[in-house]
Amino acid sequence: MLIFIRSEATASERAELRHALAAEGARGPLGTLPLGASDVIGVDAASMTSAAAQRIAGLPAVERIVPVKTPYKLASRAASAEPTRVRVGAVTIGGGGVPPVIAGPCSVENEEQIIESAQAAKQAGAVMLRGGAFKPRTSPYAFQGLGLVGLRWLARAREVTGLPVVTEVMEPGMVDVVAEYADVLQIGARNMQNYSLLVAAGHAGKPVLLKRGPSSTIEEWLLAAEYILATGNPHVALCERGIRGFDPLTRNVLDLAAVPLLRELTHLPVVIDPSHGTGRRELVAPMALAAVAAGADALLIEMHPRPDAALSDAAQTIAPATLAAIVAGARAITAALHPDTAKTATGG
Amino acid sequence: MLIFIRSEATASERAELRHALAAEGARGPLGTLPLGASDVIGVDAASMTSAAAQRIAGLPAVERIVPVKTPYKLASRAASAEPTRVRVGAVTIGGGGVPPVIAGPCSVENEEQIIESAQAAKQAGAVMLRGGAFKPRTSPYAFQGLGLVGLRWLARAREVTGLPVVTEVMEPGMVDVVAEYADVLQIGARNMQNYSLLVAAGHAGKPVLLKRGPSSTIEEWLLAAEYILATGNPHVALCERGIRGFDPLTRNVLDLAAVPLLRELTHLPVVIDPSHGTGRRELVAPMALAAVAAGADALLIEMHPRPDAALSDAAQTIAPATLAAIVAGARAITAALHPDTAKTATGG
Amino acid sequence: MLIFIRSEATASERAELRHALAAEGARGPLGTLPLGASDVIGVDAASMTSAAAQRIAGLPAVERIVPVKTPYKLASRAASAEPTRVRVGAVTIGGGGVPPVIAGPCSVENEEQIIESAQAAKQAGAVMLRGGAFKPRTSPYAFQGLGLVGLRWLARAREVTGLPVVTEVMEPGMVDVVAEYADVLQIGARNMQNYSLLVAAGHAGKPVLLKRGPSSTIEEWLLAAEYILATGNPHVALCERGIRGFDPLTRNVLDLAAVPLLRELTHLPVVIDPSHGTGRRELVAPMALAAVAAGADALLIEMHPRPDAALSDAAQTIAPATLAAIVAGARAITAALHPDTAKTATGG
Amino acid sequence: MLIFIRSEATASERAELRHALAAEGARGPLGTLPLGASDVIGVDAASMTSAAAQRIAGLPAVERIVPVKTPYKLASRAASAEPTRVRVGAVTIGGGGVPPVIAGPCSVENEEQIIESAQAAKQAGAVMLRGGAFKPRTSPYAFQGLGLVGLRWLARAREVTGLPVVTEVMEPGMVDVVAEYADVLQIGARNMQNYSLLVAAGHAGKPVLLKRGPSSTIEEWLLAAEYILATGNPHVALCERGIRGFDPLTRNVLDLAAVPLLRELTHLPVVIDPSHGTGRRELVAPMALAAVAAGADALLIEMHPRPDAALSDAAQTIAPATLAAIVAGARAITAALHPDTAKTATGG
Repeated sequence: MLIFIRSEATASERAELRHALAAEGARGPLGTLPLGASDVIGVDAASMTSAAAQRIAGLPAVERIVPVKTPYKLASRAASAEPTRVRVGAVTIGGGGVPPVIAGPCSVENEEQIIESAQAAKQAGAVMLRGGAFKPRTSPYAFQGLGLVGLRWLARAREVTGLPVVTEVMEPGMVDVVAEYADVLQIGARNMQNYSLLVAAGHAGKPVLLKRGPSSTIEEWLLAAEYILATGNPHVALCERGIRGFDPLTRNVLDLAAVPLLRELTHLPVVIDPSHGTGRRELVAPMALAAVAAGADALLIEMHPRPDAALSDAAQTIAPATLAAIVAGARAITAALHPDTAKTATGG
Repeated sequence: MLIFIRSEATASERAELRHALAAEGARGPLGTLPLGASDVIGVDAASMTSAAAQRIAGLPAVERIVPVKTPYKLASRAASAEPTRVRVGAVTIGGGGVPPVIAGPCSVENEEQIIESAQAAKQAGAVMLRGGAFKPRTSPYAFQGLGLVGLRWLARAREVTGLPVVTEVMEPGMVDVVAEYADVLQIGARNMQNYSLLVAAGHAGKPVLLKRGPSSTIEEWLLAAEYILATGNPHVALCERGIRGFDPLTRNVLDLAAVPLLRELTHLPVVIDPSHGTGRRELVAPMALAAVAAGADALLIEMHPRPDAALSDAAQTIAPATLAAIVAGARAITAALHPDTAKTATGG
Repeated sequence: MLIFIRSEATASERAELRHALAAEGARGPLGTLPLGASDVIGVDAASMTSAAAQRIAGLPAVERIVPVKTPYKLASRAASAEPTRVRVGAVTIGGGGVPPVIAGPCSVENEEQIIESAQAAKQAGAVMLRGGAFKPRTSPYAFQGLGLVGLRWLARAREVTGLPVVTEVMEPGMVDVVAEYADVLQIGARNMQNYSLLVAAGHAGKPVLLKRGPSSTIEEWLLAAEYILATGNPHVALCERGIRGFDPLTRNVLDLAAVPLLRELTHLPVVIDPSHGTGRRELVAPMALAAVAAGADALLIEMHPRPDAALSDAAQTIAPATLAAIVAGARAITAALHPDTAKTATGG
Repeated sequence: MLIFIRSEATASERAELRHALAAEGARGPLGTLPLGASDVIGVDAASMTSAAAQRIAGLPAVERIVPVKTPYKLASRAASAEPTRVRVGAVTIGGGGVPPVIAGPCSVENEEQIIESAQAAKQAGAVMLRGGAFKPRTSPYAFQGLGLVGLRWLARAREVTGLPVVTEVMEPGMVDVVAEYADVLQIGARNMQNYSLLVAAGHAGKPVLLKRGPSSTIEEWLLAAEYILATGNPHVALCERGIRGFDPLTRNVLDLAAVPLLRELTHLPVVIDPSHGTGRRELVAPMALAAVAAGADALLIEMHPRPDAALSDAAQTIAPATLAAIVAGARAITAALHPDTAKTATGG
């Protein structure tokens, strides 16, 4: 169930609520999430009797209690009538308008490459920079990323271009270091159910981009988001990047229906990554445009000034000119389908 | 390999070619396919020596021989530089422009319902009518369709509205009967590898809409199309309708990346069925628009004047008003992305 | 629901029951299935009011009415306390004992090959011969089988060795021809939901081996079996041959858990095909033995006197010596796990 | 490639080899793995010229260099002719004989429960105890395990019964704590590609049980094992626990063909977990026996003195009597199939 707290509730009334929940044996992460106009607490309904729930509902801090049937509570539509808008500098992910495009190379390779990439991305119309410094690689023999120095060069690219930076963090012990340099913490697909990492990233307070695991159901994904939300951090964006399929012609199957389905189920914004979602460069632009038409809130795209020279994921990396065409197409589709909102500039 | 025949080749030169192929032991369906400016024959390269291939290349009927690495030959891009345009009355599927929308109920239920559906579809902007008379149903206890009388009512709805009709045929022995009433023969997903049916449908000469099997790779699908093309019937449209997935929230996973991928691999047009592709009514419109943005050549949509009263597939059936919004959206997206071709009226 | 008919019911009492069901609007295949001690009729419960069901229950022909929650009725455990034993000559599939082994080449290639294969299979301990005369092939350029002449050579191999023959039938129009030569009609995985074919095969009256479609759920498979059972033919064996997976190292994923799961859900026997189930020769023996340990009722295995020379499926075809080891292993495991039943000679 | 080191190589010769590899720019984890009679180093062949490789081959420390085509090196069959035997107290996993059975509850619930479980497991013939103290749960609202106190009670159960203990570790920062209490560190399916955790677990030096991710290919799994091996820890056992499937009737699809396939590809032992692999209690025993017949090196089974009262995974948890039947069956099958090795007592 969801417990909505009165906005005027005093600190002592809130403390009283927390004590009462503990005394009633309420189970759950019990994190207080600031959502829309209210603060909200998620509780496992099975952990309280209905009499206890009624007692809680009577406390002065409580505005109302809402039962939620889905196993995720804070991530559910019931927790917020308003769509969550994840704000990163001038960029807003969620809530309509032309979907902002996040672009950049798979990996930070050297200072020049990441700065050149950021400039090319900006010029093509992207409003945020992606780039991997710590790279989860299937093989221990593959290039694992530059680590800390990669983070520094990402920060330098931000300085030069003004683009905020999203980059992956792979272990709880590194969250603080990565958060020092990044504007958005990315949780990779392999780590979607790395719960210690989710909690650590949540506590860092920065926006979190949570990629879907390749064989995760929508419900498992929303429950992973719930781990982050339950730390009290509402700045979560979900990123679909393809699920495991059986056809060797594509790396993954991009599940675009997740966009409208999530719109029904959650208030969190949905980002689409057509690069990992297909694994083939020539499919990236059409699938990016399809994502926009389906209602995606943002795009995450691998781009490199010289795609064939990319140290990792070259086969799915596009050139700046293709990125510019995607940005133009995203604007055109939004203008065509939502003429009223398309003027909303996102990301400046 | 593909053997392109000179357009001026005489009947006796063509006969000479056929005899030579037989004499060399060439294997394959060996059907002659009229494609673009040429007639083309597909041959299994492994069945001939290169010396034999050279002898064939020297015959007067032969314009050129093109090696093809993919197992499908006639369906491959190499067989035709031009996209195949499947023409059904005034409707053209393939080759650009606003994708025509084919709509109608899952099943023909009675004469009034199918006529009312056809009128509603036409009014909403659809240019072809779908409706099942013979229904493949997972359970023998489920409604199996009205059969012959259903075909007659479909023909009556065509008479009333002028919309051509696509309907499913389930067995070789019924192809002639269905072809008598239908403008397009649909091969359902369960029958994608029912080879006797593919060949029989091909021989009927009418356009064939070939649905993808729920666990078929793109290559298996194109090879199924090859069975039809090899009968000499070039009027084949491919229809993606969702592949088997693991998430219980949707009936299937709509594999939209198949659209741009097929564009590379084949000259055949691609139709998207977002109704079966998702199984949820509220996902149909966003996925239909996404399909258009991805480059689909047509849409196939389940619509019913009163969706909740539909005898089959009610959960994925939309109302006429939603259909009208999809048609408008398809026009708007095409105009936004391809301003030059969007004026091409398809289907009158 | 299931309607069990009294064994002493007269023809006129049975006719009265049929008329009453029709009059009450009962829906379903309504086929009468002789199962164990009773004849049974399957009816869609939703098609009758409970008052109507009570009236039916009161008819003299009716022993009892049993509600069944699963969508399949005649195939359900509720329809028969006894396991179905499919009898083919001296061979019994189902009901315990050492699982009979059905072996032979993927395709009939010529008279000598199929006779030599049958002799080798028999010598290795197999009790039934498999071999394809009509071959469903993904590519129209691949060897499609020898057709009618292949059937004749299969019959000749039976004459020489005494082994009954199972072979595939691919279209309704060919059922009679194939049934003339074959002892068991095989429905291939691609045709599991080819309902016209299921019904035609059922009506032929011969035992039917129904392979599972590569992306079919257990429920869809049992409903396909229901189509056959509803023709009044109780001689159905289910054959698991691998489901579609994502790992390129194997052709399919052999779902052995289907064996104990089906034991719970149905009275029909379960055959395992480890050849198609893995696609790799070296995995066939261990998976065959695993199938026996899991409780499989029979094995269906591709074997060729010279596996590498097989015209189709060579990579998954084993040699006679490996077959002999499998037969010995199957006996040893059955003796170890079920010492009381292992002595039951199956297939002579 | 694999570099095998001469067993008599001196410390300075070994140091010389390391320096030379660094000087040649050799890439890879470069961990030295003691395997069979040799120490082995894995190197990415692409990182060295063949001239460099020849120079390395000429160093006094080097016995021979073996090229390996698979992306995993240390895990490959080429790295060891002998099967790896993971030894835990008196228990040996790998190398033949009756497969040892590891059993216990999903979660440690309290001291009495885990001691009672350990006693019941031992009595039924299990030789190692499993039990979760730190539990990765899909929902943050679900019981997350008892943590440190659970580890203490596991240690107490070991004291009482003598059974060594396997338990899961979920984050790098907890490896030392868990390793203090556990005999074997389990990496769960969700964490198969949590590389920081793999490396930390490897460095702990204790045996590691690496579960397969639900959508991981065999190759990705072996590469995950390579991360552990590359730390110099050779004590790795692979555990198949079911892959993601499409059928709602089972929790996962147990991929038993992985057993013989891994036997070809790797020297590491393979453990089968039929509890998670099916998710249904009544399927556990038949699939456990099937695993033994397929050649599994050990079984990992969820058992609880009162299965229905288990706090987690009750649906797939068996009772002690079923476990005893599995142990007896495993012995009987091994005796039947490998009469010479079946006498090898494993685990005392």
